[in-house]
Amino acid sequence: MRAAVLDGPRAVSVHDVPDPVLPGPEGVIVTVERTAICGSDLHLYHDAPTGAGIRLGHEAIGTVADAGPQVRTLKPGDRVLVSGVIGCGVCRPCLAGHPNVCLNDKAAAFGTVPDLPGGQAEAMAVPFADLFALPIPEGVADEEAVLLTDILPTGYLGAQRADIRPGATVVVVGLGPVGIMALQCASLYGPGRILAVDMVPERLARAERLGAEPIDARTAPGSAQVLAATGGRGAESVIEAVGADASIVDALSCAASGGTVSIVGVNLSMGLPIPMALVLLKSLTVRAVFAPIPGTWPDLVPLVQAGRLAVADTFTHRMGLEEVSKAYELFDSRADGVLKILLTPNP
Amino acid sequence: MRAAVLDGPRAVSVHDVPDPVLPGPEGVIVTVERTAICGSDLHLYHDAPTGAGIRLGHEAIGTVADAGPQVRTLKPGDRVLVSGVIGCGVCRPCLAGHPNVCLNDKAAAFGTVPDLPGGQAEAMAVPFADLFALPIPEGVADEEAVLLTDILPTGYLGAQRADIRPGATVVVVGLGPVGIMALQCASLYGPGRILAVDMVPERLARAERLGAEPIDARTAPGSAQVLAATGGRGAESVIEAVGADASIVDALSCAASGGTVSIVGVNLSMGLPIPMALVLLKSLTVRAVFAPIPGTWPDLVPLVQAGRLAVADTFTHRMGLEEVSKAYELFDSRADGVLKILLTPNP
Amino acid sequence: MRAAVLDGPRAVSVHDVPDPVLPGPEGVIVTVERTAICGSDLHLYHDAPTGAGIRLGHEAIGTVADAGPQVRTLKPGDRVLVSGVIGCGVCRPCLAGHPNVCLNDKAAAFGTVPDLPGGQAEAMAVPFADLFALPIPEGVADEEAVLLTDILPTGYLGAQRADIRPGATVVVVGLGPVGIMALQCASLYGPGRILAVDMVPERLARAERLGAEPIDARTAPGSAQVLAATGGRGAESVIEAVGADASIVDALSCAASGGTVSIVGVNLSMGLPIPMALVLLKSLTVRAVFAPIPGTWPDLVPLVQAGRLAVADTFTHRMGLEEVSKAYELFDSRADGVLKILLTPNP
Amino acid sequence: MRAAVLDGPRAVSVHDVPDPVLPGPEGVIVTVERTAICGSDLHLYHDAPTGAGIRLGHEAIGTVADAGPQVRTLKPGDRVLVSGVIGCGVCRPCLAGHPNVCLNDKAAAFGTVPDLPGGQAEAMAVPFADLFALPIPEGVADEEAVLLTDILPTGYLGAQRADIRPGATVVVVGLGPVGIMALQCASLYGPGRILAVDMVPERLARAERLGAEPIDARTAPGSAQVLAATGGRGAESVIEAVGADASIVDALSCAASGGTVSIVGVNLSMGLPIPMALVLLKSLTVRAVFAPIPGTWPDLVPLVQAGRLAVADTFTHRMGLEEVSKAYELFDSRADGVLKILLTPNP
Repeated sequence: MRAAVLDGPRAVSVHDVPDPVLPGPEGVIVTVERTAICGSDLHLYHDAPTGAGIRLGHEAIGTVADAGPQVRTLKPGDRVLVSGVIGCGVCRPCLAGHPNVCLNDKAAAFGTVPDLPGGQAEAMAVPFADLFALPIPEGVADEEAVLLTDILPTGYLGAQRADIRPGATVVVVGLGPVGIMALQCASLYGPGRILAVDMVPERLARAERLGAEPIDARTAPGSAQVLAATGGRGAESVIEAVGADASIVDALSCAASGGTVSIVGVNLSMGLPIPMALVLLKSLTVRAVFAPIPGTWPDLVPLVQAGRLAVADTFTHRMGLEEVSKAYELFDSRADGVLKILLTPNP
Repeated sequence: MRAAVLDGPRAVSVHDVPDPVLPGPEGVIVTVERTAICGSDLHLYHDAPTGAGIRLGHEAIGTVADAGPQVRTLKPGDRVLVSGVIGCGVCRPCLAGHPNVCLNDKAAAFGTVPDLPGGQAEAMAVPFADLFALPIPEGVADEEAVLLTDILPTGYLGAQRADIRPGATVVVVGLGPVGIMALQCASLYGPGRILAVDMVPERLARAERLGAEPIDARTAPGSAQVLAATGGRGAESVIEAVGADASIVDALSCAASGGTVSIVGVNLSMGLPIPMALVLLKSLTVRAVFAPIPGTWPDLVPLVQAGRLAVADTFTHRMGLEEVSKAYELFDSRADGVLKILLTPNP
Repeated sequence: MRAAVLDGPRAVSVHDVPDPVLPGPEGVIVTVERTAICGSDLHLYHDAPTGAGIRLGHEAIGTVADAGPQVRTLKPGDRVLVSGVIGCGVCRPCLAGHPNVCLNDKAAAFGTVPDLPGGQAEAMAVPFADLFALPIPEGVADEEAVLLTDILPTGYLGAQRADIRPGATVVVVGLGPVGIMALQCASLYGPGRILAVDMVPERLARAERLGAEPIDARTAPGSAQVLAATGGRGAESVIEAVGADASIVDALSCAASGGTVSIVGVNLSMGLPIPMALVLLKSLTVRAVFAPIPGTWPDLVPLVQAGRLAVADTFTHRMGLEEVSKAYELFDSRADGVLKILLTPNP
Repeated sequence: MRAAVLDGPRAVSVHDVPDPVLPGPEGVIVTVERTAICGSDLHLYHDAPTGAGIRLGHEAIGTVADAGPQVRTLKPGDRVLVSGVIGCGVCRPCLAGHPNVCLNDKAAAFGTVPDLPGGQAEAMAVPFADLFALPIPEGVADEEAVLLTDILPTGYLGAQRADIRPGATVVVVGLGPVGIMALQCASLYGPGRILAVDMVPERLARAERLGAEPIDARTAPGSAQVLAATGGRGAESVIEAVGADASIVDALSCAASGGTVSIVGVNLSMGLPIPMALVLLKSLTVRAVFAPIPGTWPDLVPLVQAGRLAVADTFTHRMGLEEVSKAYELFDSRADGVLKILLTPNP
């Protein structure tokens, strides 16, 4: 079959690869119909690990082609969405939908390690499918289902872990795909105001359409503008969705005394310099999260079904899997108003 | 001055009464400009206590006419809204805005006991005014300010104590003024669905306009329809805003396993028969609340300012204080599409 | 094999019954080595349902004799403790260890319904054994393991759901086996005082040895004494572990404003008269719980291993399975200092 | 009167200074009877700010000598303990006992800024005394009262903000005075195990006497030993009570996936390098706190009264105020088994 493979730094192309095989009696094979590129894929893209060759992608939906004998809830022909992150499939947190805190340390995202080939492909193998795949629920469109595989849950956890109280002021730093999901999920907690920080005009405009107050960080640091907009107090809840060192520090500077900063931007530094004096004197809570996707589905699916999350127009570009090289290039450039790209392996 | 006085069962009229005097060095006198009748006033109205003569009303806004020497945050001329419930003014919960759990057992509503004359009058005395009165914030209209004196905080606490999770199904039983506030406050917690139960067509229509699914309890019990609408599971969160025995029991029957029933309807029975087997087998949480109003203002004011609570059209009727007798009669009848009546003592 | 069978009101005896068979590919057969009588068994004992013949018991430990082909974590020869309550074994709450809120409404206790024969027998069948049985952990004694099958988790949930804050005053109403577990679990939350109410001198003495202040309800109602002991305020957290109508009402009367009453006593009334005026004016939270046992094991096992729960002397009597009739009689009588009886089917 | 004054780096001595005057109508003058040196005083001691001359100390108890006319709850002759941290005294958080998140940004500790002279003196002025001083409760010994002015509340908040669940494994990094308070407060949350890390043998022995498992960080990094002792998983809750850069990083490395690190050690770095990759991949929560002391008293006082916190032997040395220079030197040296030094200004 055909699959997107990381060839090296900033180089992705489609290769012929062996077809996936059933990953144990509780696994399934899924024929992928829609898949997407995630901001976190760019970490690999920019800095291809030694021994490139990884089959990329952790956001995919499709149809079950084959199911192991112990799969209970799925059968061939079922259309499913696949959790971007999985775990051992046996421990209590995995059973409860939180593979990110897998007790056996097996938390991993598809398409990021050699032994878990990704979903930017014509097909993928999904272990422990009762836990890590979900029949696409009635009333959930295909593109919404793709969002449920990773970035909507990630944005939701970012909002959930920001301790937003009704009436509070919330800041979202970074309005890329995850930031836009976080912004909408922040609304679920009844804030009084949402301040949305970015440097890209289209992204600021999108946030404004969603009810937020845009803050253009090209003119002055986001935190300075947030403090000015809040009488010097800052915001009770801050969601960081960029992951750059400077962005995280700026997010910390946006927080009011007693506030929470919830980080969903991916930052893998082992020595990120943070203003600890600020954290201490303001009695802050700082959190990051590696998303436990299945555990969020019971909350998110009814919201998508009810149309309470306006995620339909998240995808700005749709391309075939064969165009994957061009797709990565475009997504990385942030040009052409790109927010999120959908790929279609089996049109 | 003129004040509404409870003469006996279903009899209220305006009397000449002595002007209020400053209730201690930390109190103020407020010239009342807008006041309202509350559903809980009807408890007194239906069943006037021995020795009637109570000066009614616990929802009022106006202008500070005089302030004691130890009042810090208010001065004559300030326009304020007054908490419907006050406490001792000295204990930690009172200081923190929760007079309902006053450690000195002094929690009381204006206009319900002889020594705390009410706000359906030309003026009222407010003890410990730094705690129990609030300058009407910029961007809050007068009628919104009246709602902040009692029923919006009560509805908010009803929603807050219902443990609503994003995506959850919520039921609101009773769509009178408090129920309508509760319904809007429930939306602050990101539910997937809100089912709204009542018997009055206008009230059901109002709930539907606010995004809820109306359930007409004239055709079948609310709980039966709720169970049917949820595949037999019931709702994770239920808010009861009627207070009748049958209504509370029906609310309990609406709840899903592990769910919460939050009661804001006033029921003063000392022997209300409840289905304990249901509470046990479904592992329910049941709560009631006597509203800690000042403690809710920091949350609610920004929401009202931002227009995130559509409370503007809550008042369906506006009358002069001199018409108070007619006003109680109308409010009690539920006729003429009445939801909430505003009274103007000093036009 | 031999099993305790309910013959009719207050009549239990040991019968020859068919051996259990594997309950599906994910189930096991357990040879029972220790089992116990629970206070909730007395509900059946007092009021045998039509068509008696139920095989009793939901507290048992033993050795796996046979395991279905899809069981992952257990094999013949493993010594296990068995959850007293199970569910469908497939839904998310069951996977997460909360069968009490099973989405498929299959929550049930062993030995209470005909199709789930109990553990007061030489052997029992356990469906979905990966979820509902646990290898007896190192450092957990057999009698402690029996307590982990029901009453320790039930007492723990009673305490957990009582919202105990450090420094708070807690009341435990009823010092039978579950009450004594609840009392010890209440200590896990750092209360300032625990007041323990009962009428049986040995039980009061036991509570006092565990650090509680005994309140003898023979001399005056428990609530009157609790109010006297707390300057009229009552207790922030109350745990009810009797289940009688009067006892629940008394527990409600013990609560301070803003407090929580957590009910673990079994009361199956469909019309229990409660003082709603009190619940409202004191802004109480009232909860009951039908125990989600597996979900409590990760918390409780380390506490038992560390010796932080003094449960070792809970069993006051040890008898053979053949003496089951006498055992029920004794347990029901509360005579002879009985607190909890251990039965040994396969000595 | 006499007061301890910071003369410069590592130089403190007793000076004659002007007597304090009433700080407004809601303030009091307290004749200090017991005061103590805090680890955070050493920050000033090591690094005396420009314009030294600060009157040190924020832990003091004594007798009210004079009270302003608007003080309600205190009068001359009352023995009181004084909150180490105060705020504006007017905003809602100050009223509620949380001056650390004062809305008017007036949170400050006595003895750390020129306009708030400290309590290592014969007398001190306490503004808004109804909020920031507490009559020493019956059953609380003087030395316990001193601990309630700062380090016991700080340790308590450290434990409270560590999200300790019953049965959890807790690590306390640093067993100085605050760490020892935190360790005891951690016990209030029912942990299964407490691992206590330090390098000073007496401190490790003290922790072991309190029920913790000592980990001597002289032999290997604390985190390496914690991981070894927990099968590689780490601890769900970690309390950091040192404040050094390396110690905070080590504390982060001790945490299990999904865990919380609560920092009470004072670190005023504006660029502390932290392993963000760890925080992200383990989905950690990281908190620091600047203690809201009065808000903790309602919880802590009953625990001290009940003897549930073994804080009596915290003071290892007792000296006169005139020996303050020697006292700082000894405390800074950690020699002679010193844990905490009590000073007596008015013997």
